This record gives sequence, C-alpha cells and structure tokens, in this order.
Amino acid sequence: MSRYLDDFRIGDSFETPGVTLTEGMILDFALTYDPQPFHIDIEAARDSQFGGLIASGFQTVALVFRLFMQTGVTAASGIGGSGMDQVRWLLPVRPGDTLRATVEVAEVRPHPKRNDRGAVRFRYTARNQRGETVLTMICEHLIARRPEAALR
Amino acid sequence: MSRYLDDFRIGDSFETPGVTLTEGMILDFALTYDPQPFHIDIEAARDSQFGGLIASGFQTVALVFRLFMQTGVTAASGIGGSGMDQVRWLLPVRPGDTLRATVEVAEVRPHPKRNDRGAVRFRYTARNQRGETVLTMICEHLIARRPEAALR
Repeated sequence: MSRYLDDFRIGDSFETPGVTLTEGMILDFALTYDPQPFHIDIEAARDSQFGGLIASGFQTVALVFRLFMQTGVTAASGIGGSGMDQVRWLLPVRPGDTLRATVEVAEVRPHPKRNDRGAVRFRYTARNQRGETVLTMICEHLIARRPEAALR
Repeated sequence: MSRYLDDFRIGDSFETPGVTLTEGMILDFALTYDPQPFHIDIEAARDSQFGGLIASGFQTVALVFRLFMQTGVTAASGIGGSGMDQVRWLLPVRPGDTLRATVEVAEVRPHPKRNDRGAVRFRYTARNQRGETVLTMICEHLIARRPEAALR
C-alpha cells in the first residue's frame, strides 16, 4: 500500500475515501480560522450570495489532504510538504456535503542534493456527492526513497 | 479602515497583528486535519527530521489568512476567495512561536462581467518572532466595489 519515491509514475492515480461535513464542523473551524459571516453566522450566510452556510476553503483544502493521507499511500514515505499551487475553490461546500478526491501524480523529482528523498507533485480533484468538482489543487510532498535505494 | 476594490493599489501593504501557537492548538488541529506523526505525536516528532513537534502547514496558512481578516481591511468588502498560488512552507512553526504577516497588493482586477466586484491578489509573507520568514503565499480575494461606484 505505502509507496516510496521510486514507486511513483506520472499519471498514477489514487481514489480517497470520503468525508461528510456537518454544520458544527464548519462553524467550529471557521470561528477560529476563517471568521467571515458566510462561514460562522447562519443568518448572515442565508442573506449572502451563497444563500446559506458554506465551509471555509481552508477547511476543505485540509480535509482533502487528510483524505489522501488516509489512503496510506505516503504513510511510510511522507516527510512533509513544501507547498501548494493552483488551489481553486470552484463550488461552495455546504453542511451535509460529502467530499472525496482523485489524486494524480503530476511530477516526480529527485532531490538535487540528497539521495534519500525527492518531491512528488500531486494534483487533487475533489468532488461532492453529486460528482461536481468543488476544489482542485496541486500539493508538493517530500517523499523518502526506499531505504535500500537511498543507500546506493 | 475597510477598503473596497477601487481603494486598492498595487504595492499597498498591510501589517497584521500576531498570534502565538500552543502545543495544544497544534495537536488539536492536526489530529483532525493533518495526522502525520510530526504533527500529532511529540515522541515521534522528536525523532523526526524536525527534532520536535511542528504545526501543520494548513494550520499556518489558515491562521495567517485569519490575521489579515483581523485587520478589517476587507471586513465590509470581502465576498469570498477564489484560490491560492505559490504557497511555500519555508521553515517549521513550533509551539510557542508567534506569527505575524505583511500582506501586499500584487494585482487588482475588475470582474469581466459584473460591475459590483473584482479580484485582488494579495501576497502574504509570514514571519516568526525572530523575523524569519516561515510562509509565503498568494491568495486571491473577491472584493466588492463601493456600493455607489457599482451603481454607475
């Protein structure tokens, strides 16, 4: 299940499990991390352009990343992240929505100096229960080589 | 204090207040959103390349965004976000670290179809209490025009 740097090929694709967001999760997250009216105030959200409460985009980004962690693909080899690019919030995520993601290998790059690791750029596409794409992003993960490969 | 689309000029710069991360905040966030050993397990973190517990990058991204919200600059005009680019986690953030950010206007773009709004790209540079840059990112915010300007 768990893969190392040498095991990833461009175009490899992984399906994550799902997660359902509740109203409570959305409110709790946003009150600390993104206290805009349409994320923390159901009355104000109803009168906003969104017509109701929506999840913070930072919450959906983190949850989708977490779903990929749950696959275990990088469980033994993940040694941190270096960045994100092209994060796009395409549709609102509302209480009761269930997200799951397809995660595709976009680039595999050995470390320029260290023989024991490299970077993999993963392209995430997250969909809701109706199959609509709500979020796309690229995350760059630092990934270890197989211990025996790193010794060579 | 609060600005509308027409008030932003490229190069305008804002200083946020600060926030101190505790060990508890780091553990609580990561257990839900980023359960990697160096974010949720103090013992494992000590033996990792980081030499101790570090905050999830998704937590620092959201906190830095929140700090900018606290300035009130977009309090009356913010109508959501469309995306992030060039998010770079440059240095670990540890329990007890205090973050604050400089937020600079990188681009101002009227909406191609709607007269009442536009997009502003903000370049965030977050520093710790030693002045070291720990995180940089660009966030695109949707920003309303002044109500009277939008009517023209």
